Amino acid sequence: MIGNELVSGETADANAFFMAGALTEKGFRVARVLMVGDREEDIREALLGARERAATVIVSGGLGPTSDDLTTAAAAAAFGERLVLREEIREQIRARFAKGGLEMPRSNEKQAVFPAGAEIIPNPVGTAPGFCLRSGGTSFFFLPGVPRELRHLFRESVLPRLESERKGSLHYRSRVLKVFGFTESAIADRLRGLNPELFSAELSYLPRYPENHVKVVSRGADAGAVEENLAKVEKIIMEKLEGRVFAVDRETLEEVVGRLLKERQATLAVAESCTGGLVAHRLTNVPGSSDYFERGLVVYSNRAKTDLLGVPEDLIARLGAVSGPVAEKMAEGVRLLSRSTLGLGITGIAGPGGGSADKPVGTVFIALAGPDGTAARGYRFWGDRDQVKGITAQTALDWVRRYFLRNGIAGFKK
Amino acid sequence: MIGNELVSGETADANAFFMAGALTEKGFRVARVLMVGDREEDIREALLGARERAATVIVSGGLGPTSDDLTTAAAAAAFGERLVLREEIREQIRARFAKGGLEMPRSNEKQAVFPAGAEIIPNPVGTAPGFCLRSGGTSFFFLPGVPRELRHLFRESVLPRLESERKGSLHYRSRVLKVFGFTESAIADRLRGLNPELFSAELSYLPRYPENHVKVVSRGADAGAVEENLAKVEKIIMEKLEGRVFAVDRETLEEVVGRLLKERQATLAVAESCTGGLVAHRLTNVPGSSDYFERGLVVYSNRAKTDLLGVPEDLIARLGAVSGPVAEKMAEGVRLLSRSTLGLGITGIAGPGGGSADKPVGTVFIALAGPDGTAARGYRFWGDRDQVKGITAQTALDWVRRYFLRNGIAGFKK
Repeated sequence: MIGNELVSGETADANAFFMAGALTEKGFRVARVLMVGDREEDIREALLGARERAATVIVSGGLGPTSDDLTTAAAAAAFGERLVLREEIREQIRARFAKGGLEMPRSNEKQAVFPAGAEIIPNPVGTAPGFCLRSGGTSFFFLPGVPRELRHLFRESVLPRLESERKGSLHYRSRVLKVFGFTESAIADRLRGLNPELFSAELSYLPRYPENHVKVVSRGADAGAVEENLAKVEKIIMEKLEGRVFAVDRETLEEVVGRLLKERQATLAVAESCTGGLVAHRLTNVPGSSDYFERGLVVYSNRAKTDLLGVPEDLIARLGAVSGPVAEKMAEGVRLLSRSTLGLGITGIAGPGGGSADKPVGTVFIALAGPDGTAARGYRFWGDRDQVKGITAQTALDWVRRYFLRNGIAGFKK
Repeated sequence: MIGNELVSGETADANAFFMAGALTEKGFRVARVLMVGDREEDIREALLGARERAATVIVSGGLGPTSDDLTTAAAAAAFGERLVLREEIREQIRARFAKGGLEMPRSNEKQAVFPAGAEIIPNPVGTAPGFCLRSGGTSFFFLPGVPRELRHLFRESVLPRLESERKGSLHYRSRVLKVFGFTESAIADRLRGLNPELFSAELSYLPRYPENHVKVVSRGADAGAVEENLAKVEKIIMEKLEGRVFAVDRETLEEVVGRLLKERQATLAVAESCTGGLVAHRLTNVPGSSDYFERGLVVYSNRAKTDLLGVPEDLIARLGAVSGPVAEKMAEGVRLLSRSTLGLGITGIAGPGGGSADKPVGTVFIALAGPDGTAARGYRFWGDRDQVKGITAQTALDWVRRYFLRNGIAGFKK
């Protein structure tokens, strides 16, 4: 990837990310992604370094008409090739301008100049054609950096060619298992006995606070075996993680909760103190959530807890607003008020202020009320305000998921 | 940057982008950004290659507790250093777990192992400390890949150290002016007359949907002149953008709103339909928000609007729940119920369902009720569900800000 904007923090890379995803999906291994600025010697050095390492190198950027577009010249210099003007390409560029009623600016002539041995990759969506060059046993593909043009040329020309040149066929399947309730190291401890290589698979861990994702990749020559291996590894992980995998691939926790509520024709209402509306916000991020979510109350003050939910004043006075019994009354109150199947009550100290020796920042009580009773549990979470809000909301939503998996409130009382 | 997720197109790089921006801002030149996967030989080779090229190398990722975290071992191998267990660091990690009432999982012990010559960079926000190592005249900084931890260690430890070691002095000051309510091109049009070069300054535009940020950078050898130039440019922009700059640098809109409410000793309550709790969530992201935010109601159903806020059923029947008068009743209802100074009412269609020819997806009504009356206004926003929720919440919060700037409700009735 070539461009000053990439090494100055001006533009976040999107091209390498796109190509790496597409290549990985097709079973290619991307060994390195390198970004350099618009300096000829840096580009030259990057090209020569890549030639030593890889069978295929895809280069993007620096094919434009301006003085900071140096890739073509750097490639010719690096590989000891002359630069030649390709008349037919100049005519194509001129024709592109003419179609828009414009004369071709002189600077665009540069885009018709290529290293002598280059094979042109036509660009139907822009002025800069790409080109392909072989040097020292390595194939180089040079593509424009404009994302729309890059994607087009990559998809239409580069990827099909790489696939057709590949010896044999390689199948690739992946699955992301989303875990909540185990730390990354707890997951690693539990999966210690699993040897993914036995299934031609690889595991990787992706922390997505407060979630942890485990990605399983299976590769092989036989499509059926790849699918089967993936399923086997997934099954083992599911067993070892005992219900802590809450979703697979792109599904979110709030979507899972929504799906379970819909399947059971159940509804949910929430009374939030320390999460301040985050649970309601997440629930309502799901299209169609009005089918099972009717109201949420953000009861930040004690008065709001008493007025709206009927939490007894003396209970708050005796035990504090941050306590299990208050969470229970909140859950029961909002459930009754809204006539919902389930009610969640959440109270805690998100910080940075409000903590005490007895109840430090991160102290949280969550309660769930259902037709079969109410249960509350206390937590002591870690982190700053955002994190406490985040992990509390996640824990509360996960309670609803587990309510359905665990046959009701009884499961929480153990 | 080290991690399979980066070379497989799973996770777009954010760390290199962040650090490159911060380094460029401070006048450093970033020559290369390299990403490799979790393979020890690739990491080793990348480290040795970087040592030949750069005076300073920042490495991120691969310091975690799992088997695919290989950076420390690769660094030791590359630079011919032994790996040693640092007891004091192990105790720190153990203590971090103990604080949360947890035992340290065995896999975390790995995070207390470092190359013998390493200088530890403490990590107050996570379990993986960073470390610094010198080899062949090059300084290597190894940081964890979790973005929050990386940013913290980079800002607090790496950047100050690089700046203090730099020879010569270049002063650099920047300011980010956060704009809401003008598009990027509207801002550019209004700033057309401003020539930042006259003040040795540069402007850049950073779209941060739904906000637009204008960044002013001033550089020079004289600290006083740099500061003065920056202030002059800022003043001109503030005037030209007429109150649409809602915050400067790191302050958020919800912090500005909180600050204004506190200064005026005013309180705010919100009744949300289509934003589903997002406004309450944002308000309560600010520490100390309980001083001015007492409650929020997420009234997703019509029944909740009627039951909790006294919105007349026949009003909803006549005009629909998504209408100006219903927004007004919601704002007035929640203001009275909570005895707050101001009440916000928000109703709309976030999509993707629920739209009609008359009221398409993105139709939103916002109302603000205060001691001086109530005003409502209708909007037609663009975008998907997330975007409609986001821009609606932003508009509603900005109303509160402008209430104080514009001398009350009358300002909205013009």
